[in-house]
Amino acid sequence: MKRTAFFISDSTGITAEVMGESLLSHFPSIEFERHSFTYVDNEEKARAAADTINAAALSDGQAPVVFDTLISETLRNIITASNGYCVDVINTFLSPLEKALGAPSSYTVGRPKIATQSSQYNRRIEAVHFALDNDDGGRVNRYNEADVILIGVSRSGKTPSCLYLALQFGIYAANFPITEEDLETASLPKALVDYKDRLFGLTIGPDRLASIRSERLSGSRYASSRQCEREVQEALTMFERFKIPYIDTTDCSIEEISTRILAETGIERKFK
Amino acid sequence: MKRTAFFISDSTGITAEVMGESLLSHFPSIEFERHSFTYVDNEEKARAAADTINAAALSDGQAPVVFDTLISETLRNIITASNGYCVDVINTFLSPLEKALGAPSSYTVGRPKIATQSSQYNRRIEAVHFALDNDDGGRVNRYNEADVILIGVSRSGKTPSCLYLALQFGIYAANFPITEEDLETASLPKALVDYKDRLFGLTIGPDRLASIRSERLSGSRYASSRQCEREVQEALTMFERFKIPYIDTTDCSIEEISTRILAETGIERKFK
Repeated sequence: MKRTAFFISDSTGITAEVMGESLLSHFPSIEFERHSFTYVDNEEKARAAADTINAAALSDGQAPVVFDTLISETLRNIITASNGYCVDVINTFLSPLEKALGAPSSYTVGRPKIATQSSQYNRRIEAVHFALDNDDGGRVNRYNEADVILIGVSRSGKTPSCLYLALQFGIYAANFPITEEDLETASLPKALVDYKDRLFGLTIGPDRLASIRSERLSGSRYASSRQCEREVQEALTMFERFKIPYIDTTDCSIEEISTRILAETGIERKFK
Repeated sequence: MKRTAFFISDSTGITAEVMGESLLSHFPSIEFERHSFTYVDNEEKARAAADTINAAALSDGQAPVVFDTLISETLRNIITASNGYCVDVINTFLSPLEKALGAPSSYTVGRPKIATQSSQYNRRIEAVHFALDNDDGGRVNRYNEADVILIGVSRSGKTPSCLYLALQFGIYAANFPITEEDLETASLPKALVDYKDRLFGLTIGPDRLASIRSERLSGSRYASSRQCEREVQEALTMFERFKIPYIDTTDCSIEEISTRILAETGIERKFK
């Protein structure tokens, strides 16, 4: 069964999409075709969105689902007059919240301030640059500033997780690859010895690892099942020998890896 | 006025936080202290969250606001029995959506699948590595694969935006810094000449730039108002001379910069 879903916003569209995707994930039997309209901040753009909704309704023979976060009543009215089923993810909760909080809400067309505040923005940028500077063991002299140092075999998810931790939570995350040489000795890589309490391991199913590595270097020894199995097994042995906490990233999205690291280590976000 | 807000989830907490923050942004007169409880997947964790909510209610003298995305009824009941004002961001919409879609929803405790699907995950990882490999003009030989090449002066927001575009949308985004030397000549940097149609400029208010640069190198010529003004002005001249589309990042979050680039260029997301 195929349906069409629209995400419509007067700003980034992030709230409409996160909320909408979260709701759609509860309908696994339906295949959704998705369309986003961001920065819908005038009537012309709203009418263009409404026209696209109507065209989808006609071709699907069924009402598309529309998730919108438009604040302007004029613009919302244009959308709700379309042949879509509109889910008003913000306004539904605003008046009950006004009662609960005993304060009026600001109904102005406005972008929710996601980390635009100067100090937050600076922290995010600094954290991103920290992740870049301390990626893949390239530099190890700033580990004393790290909130966490991720370790794991190549392509276990370290780099994207460090960047997500930086962008989303302002966390200083370094990462260090476990190489074959490290695995052959029974000791922790020298650069890590002084920072044992900041280490966090990522492990991954060998089959999944082989598939990720094949994407990059198909047919190589690096991507072979045997090599992946061996590296994963030896990395696990290392985690256990040195009592390094770790998670399995096999079925995890980058968001899950990152939020699990926070949940398991108790590291505090640097903003919010 | 100070109130406490809780975000409670049986998985990453991203939906509860994005939705909750979006709603709270409409109450700018209230200062919220925020607490997140993620991976609340058993009764013990739910009771610990409820206890913290009750403690906050007592110390604030007012009900905390609680945004939750718990699917398990047992766990939800523990939270709703607390002294918080609970906003049930998912369930509120599920039964109307079931009607609109004519399909039952899956009520199982489950994490919404955010890009865990193998092909999406691989694309995100590849895009992140593309952004890293093609950061800051370090390498320019893969520009033919780039969906977009961001250009701008140092610290105008290029790197975080490229990484966000990669992580969030699977887009191959390279970035190239405009240096003083480039600004002094009247021509486009050589590496960019063949890719003029993929260029997108970032500009920034000189004061904001000076403040960001000062964070890194306080008191330097690099961070001086005069230097920042000159670079920004000359970059703008370059954008206009070569008709390169650009946006002003001064008051923008990384999310806004990234989504505006998509909206203005029409580049399609690589998943969703």
